[in-house]
Amino acid sequence: MASNSFGLIYRFTSFGESHGDCLGVILDGVPSNFPLDLKQIQKDLDRRKPGQNKLMSQRKEDDEFELVSGFFEGKTTGTPLTFLVKNKDQKSRSYTDIVNLYRPGHADFTYHKKYKNYNPYGGGRSSARETLARVIAGAVAKQYLDQFGIKIEARLTQVGEVIASEELMNQEILRVKKLKNSIGGKIQVVAKNVPIGVGEPIYEKLDARLAYGLMSINAVKAVEIGDGVQVVTKLGSQNNDILRKDNLFESNHAGGILGGISTGQDVIASVSIKPTPSIFISQQTVNKKNEEVEFDLKGRHDPCVALRAPVIVESMVAQVIFDLMLLDGRFFS
Amino acid sequence: MASNSFGLIYRFTSFGESHGDCLGVILDGVPSNFPLDLKQIQKDLDRRKPGQNKLMSQRKEDDEFELVSGFFEGKTTGTPLTFLVKNKDQKSRSYTDIVNLYRPGHADFTYHKKYKNYNPYGGGRSSARETLARVIAGAVAKQYLDQFGIKIEARLTQVGEVIASEELMNQEILRVKKLKNSIGGKIQVVAKNVPIGVGEPIYEKLDARLAYGLMSINAVKAVEIGDGVQVVTKLGSQNNDILRKDNLFESNHAGGILGGISTGQDVIASVSIKPTPSIFISQQTVNKKNEEVEFDLKGRHDPCVALRAPVIVESMVAQVIFDLMLLDGRFFS
Amino acid sequence: MASNSFGLIYRFTSFGESHGDCLGVILDGVPSNFPLDLKQIQKDLDRRKPGQNKLMSQRKEDDEFELVSGFFEGKTTGTPLTFLVKNKDQKSRSYTDIVNLYRPGHADFTYHKKYKNYNPYGGGRSSARETLARVIAGAVAKQYLDQFGIKIEARLTQVGEVIASEELMNQEILRVKKLKNSIGGKIQVVAKNVPIGVGEPIYEKLDARLAYGLMSINAVKAVEIGDGVQVVTKLGSQNNDILRKDNLFESNHAGGILGGISTGQDVIASVSIKPTPSIFISQQTVNKKNEEVEFDLKGRHDPCVALRAPVIVESMVAQVIFDLMLLDGRFFS
Amino acid sequence: MASNSFGLIYRFTSFGESHGDCLGVILDGVPSNFPLDLKQIQKDLDRRKPGQNKLMSQRKEDDEFELVSGFFEGKTTGTPLTFLVKNKDQKSRSYTDIVNLYRPGHADFTYHKKYKNYNPYGGGRSSARETLARVIAGAVAKQYLDQFGIKIEARLTQVGEVIASEELMNQEILRVKKLKNSIGGKIQVVAKNVPIGVGEPIYEKLDARLAYGLMSINAVKAVEIGDGVQVVTKLGSQNNDILRKDNLFESNHAGGILGGISTGQDVIASVSIKPTPSIFISQQTVNKKNEEVEFDLKGRHDPCVALRAPVIVESMVAQVIFDLMLLDGRFFS
Repeated sequence: MASNSFGLIYRFTSFGESHGDCLGVILDGVPSNFPLDLKQIQKDLDRRKPGQNKLMSQRKEDDEFELVSGFFEGKTTGTPLTFLVKNKDQKSRSYTDIVNLYRPGHADFTYHKKYKNYNPYGGGRSSARETLARVIAGAVAKQYLDQFGIKIEARLTQVGEVIASEELMNQEILRVKKLKNSIGGKIQVVAKNVPIGVGEPIYEKLDARLAYGLMSINAVKAVEIGDGVQVVTKLGSQNNDILRKDNLFESNHAGGILGGISTGQDVIASVSIKPTPSIFISQQTVNKKNEEVEFDLKGRHDPCVALRAPVIVESMVAQVIFDLMLLDGRFFS
Repeated sequence: MASNSFGLIYRFTSFGESHGDCLGVILDGVPSNFPLDLKQIQKDLDRRKPGQNKLMSQRKEDDEFELVSGFFEGKTTGTPLTFLVKNKDQKSRSYTDIVNLYRPGHADFTYHKKYKNYNPYGGGRSSARETLARVIAGAVAKQYLDQFGIKIEARLTQVGEVIASEELMNQEILRVKKLKNSIGGKIQVVAKNVPIGVGEPIYEKLDARLAYGLMSINAVKAVEIGDGVQVVTKLGSQNNDILRKDNLFESNHAGGILGGISTGQDVIASVSIKPTPSIFISQQTVNKKNEEVEFDLKGRHDPCVALRAPVIVESMVAQVIFDLMLLDGRFFS
Repeated sequence: MASNSFGLIYRFTSFGESHGDCLGVILDGVPSNFPLDLKQIQKDLDRRKPGQNKLMSQRKEDDEFELVSGFFEGKTTGTPLTFLVKNKDQKSRSYTDIVNLYRPGHADFTYHKKYKNYNPYGGGRSSARETLARVIAGAVAKQYLDQFGIKIEARLTQVGEVIASEELMNQEILRVKKLKNSIGGKIQVVAKNVPIGVGEPIYEKLDARLAYGLMSINAVKAVEIGDGVQVVTKLGSQNNDILRKDNLFESNHAGGILGGISTGQDVIASVSIKPTPSIFISQQTVNKKNEEVEFDLKGRHDPCVALRAPVIVESMVAQVIFDLMLLDGRFFS
Repeated sequence: MASNSFGLIYRFTSFGESHGDCLGVILDGVPSNFPLDLKQIQKDLDRRKPGQNKLMSQRKEDDEFELVSGFFEGKTTGTPLTFLVKNKDQKSRSYTDIVNLYRPGHADFTYHKKYKNYNPYGGGRSSARETLARVIAGAVAKQYLDQFGIKIEARLTQVGEVIASEELMNQEILRVKKLKNSIGGKIQVVAKNVPIGVGEPIYEKLDARLAYGLMSINAVKAVEIGDGVQVVTKLGSQNNDILRKDNLFESNHAGGILGGISTGQDVIASVSIKPTPSIFISQQTVNKKNEEVEFDLKGRHDPCVALRAPVIVESMVAQVIFDLMLLDGRFFS
């Protein structure tokens, strides 16, 4: 049922399948009369595209968008902004062998069982190409947030057992690629200059909506706020962030959120991304006739999908913060 | 703005402050003509109340509910079920010293800054007493899910560094209590017999809504699905759950969810709960006049809030699964 | 399914049956720190109660509310305001004969068919006692709107064929009452000083939401905006409201709305209310065993329900305008 | 703010301006595996296009759609169906004189005041070209409803003072056209074979949602259910529909709805449509500099917009009934 929209006041609705004609997104609820910089949106789109270097899938997805509504004389009109992205480099042939089986770790099995009819090429609707829509929605949100000095940055902080060192993380990805395997990764995102008061308890808390938005991204298996899973081993005296005069805190274990509302500190979250299920090692699986079969992957796939995901993570954080700021009503007015 | 409802089809709306007249919850969207067992609801409520043993706060909260609408001749009528719980053992006096300061790690600071006027007694609306509403909503959901054989159980699996051993976890809590401190905890929840097909991609995925609901619980700082943060260090070949004939899987790293839809395996999630910020060690903080002051806690507080939280975690999982099953439309008909 | 809430940002959720323990309403989304005048709310409640004069049902419904959450030191806190109204003067005995049949023109038939189990006493959930919730929601909205000078007034403008003359309308009601019959009525509502810009096209237009809210009131069968059904016979040259300098219009056929957005003129709507189906003339009907039976009404019923409805109409208009003003974000900030 | 979606479970989101690149609509929540007949959708689109005969505007809008997502091997996939309609016959030049003034009776004034920046060509977002989206949404809904034998038909029943006679209504339109003026009209819509039980009280009643959807159509100024405004002059004994055995009624004053739920009788509604404000008689108005100016219309406009509206009215009724049937959960399963 209707489930392809995200957001309350700034709501985006996405559509499109990996190998369909086009994907797109409608951004509803954007304040009018705002001078949107379209090049900035393209830059964020370029950050998520494959083929940027040898660590990534060599699929070519130029992903140029058309903006077909809601924009007039260089500014938003308050009516829905609609972005279309044509699918170009579809190699559906790579998929012809596999449309009748359930690729391990992918959504083929559940989509087929739930919907009976689905587009299996390139993962269809469950493909990560859908994250194009999130990036566009986030890129627009970022420009509105920029007025407040809010800056959102995500970066890859771990690949396998390798933490923080970009060079070693890249080596690890190449090592795994040679093994025809894939590897997981962790991304941390920080939003700076978020004003005090963003978040609507009890059920539209800032942390709850971040978790909601981030966990809906393909391959995300954990969302942490601030110290996240580390809080389990902490004492209260260690975990409390002591407040000083003038809204200053001595530490930020909480990730900038108390009671679901931003404290004015950096808002910090992390996501754990599973290794892509697309590996070039032969695997057992089952086909649509319920027969056990051998599956050998073809096509072009990333060994570490986390590598291209920071911009997607940023985008969802931007969407959530912008949406909650609009919901409060006092920030944009 | 309107943010005190949770759910799409089975939606609950809660209200009430810790030391107000009463708390309550409206459950909207319950299928009619269902023989609800009210005693079973009370049992779940009893599981979350304080004072059950010496590991818990000695506050007395009997928390008996009145069901004032939506129920006729022992069965639901399809109109809203409304449960009221009177507040009885309020010791607002314990709070008189502290209503003018921001307790570290609590929501006093953000509520005051955001709302200007708030009820500070016992944490007011931000108090964990609000979780009463969640438990009632979950207890009702469980009874509907029981028709499908779905069973949801959460348990405390870690306290500080102690994993899984109930006796050692209890000792750890007592140790921390004597230190006038508090400690974090981890809870794992498993939903058995969830049918294939629950979850509505792209944005109402089962995992996304679980993260949303679970992260909105007080003190939760991380939500993991299946192997959660462990996926970061896994290879694709390790993390993929190989499918066999007849919808059977060889493993369940995914936590029973692929592409945001249940696979028919156990649905598994974990939450990390921070140590309660209420500790009996003297702490620095700031008052409403922006003066730095010393804060000495009085009153009755749990040394490990995770201990009473499993029933709350179960409840949110039950709410989410029931809601998504109703949203699909094919399960209840 | 979940359908007992109305509103987007200022959303109220109502519950309760005519002869249940209590009715109530949660008002979610009220801006915090607002000095609500509770007596003013009671005054509006008193306007809708029966037994005010001999033209009305002699049922006694004092309808005093308790406000049990969301209010602290005389002001709103931004958390849900919850109002409870106990049911007192229930004469369920009047209904014992009729719980097994479908009263003509009432919702017994559809509720029984749809829900299988429903509370038939006094109409249960379908009773006009539910409008208590609307009046409370509207009375609160009016106080917020009053800050802008917005005044909303509804009045009975027609009873049967009698138009506008209060005395003749009252005579008509008495005449019909003596006939043991009932009569329809028309109510016009005017909202003055609504600022330009209220209403969110395309689907949350001011007129669309007025129609939605007003048509959901019991017994309403038509909603008109401005000249309403009269526009069918008009020429464009007659119907256009000519604009003059400084946002002034020469006429107001449009009812103060163009393109779903307020023009700054009076917002004008009308509702047509059917004669109450409760009449004291013997009628044919069918019972729950599908047998045709004679039905003789007992109890206390209004001969013209439109007489008590103006305050309900005002309330829905106030809710809709307040909600859309909050949704725009620029008015309350 | 986000307001370009309509519907709860079957929700459509529309976008696009009259003279923009394209208009379109996303249909979210369509049950999967359904063999949609695309030609049937085009037929409904053709019914709303201008230039069908000399009574209509001679604008040429072929309005061929592309379906770019959610459809695979002739059937729906349960993912969003997206329809794009390119704008072709834009004569923006006709508008160059008038983009700086507020056309009487149009939304130019309110859009400019509210949004500051808007696309004025052809009415931009406020143009009736948006109803393309409604017709597509309705055409899809009709096909799902057809499975239940539900048939929805709207027809023009009044033009000016002329009632029901197609020939005389057409003559009236031609007469008015020659006067360079325009005229209002009334449309009645009937939905046959709607099962008992459609509609979700209290606030998602069938009649309330019909009023909501129908009043949101451009130029609609009144919505009536069943006898509509006529109920004002009726006695209860005249207005009650007497029920006989086997769910049969003796009459249908109620328009097939009791307590907001369908009775199994024909569901009947009417809408009153104002004369288009676009007339070829010179009118006074104001420009964006607040100067009073003379306005002489150019371009191609319908003398009676009600003439092309029946398919739009049908579409909204189809959307509402389909949506509420999905919401109930028992009909589609």
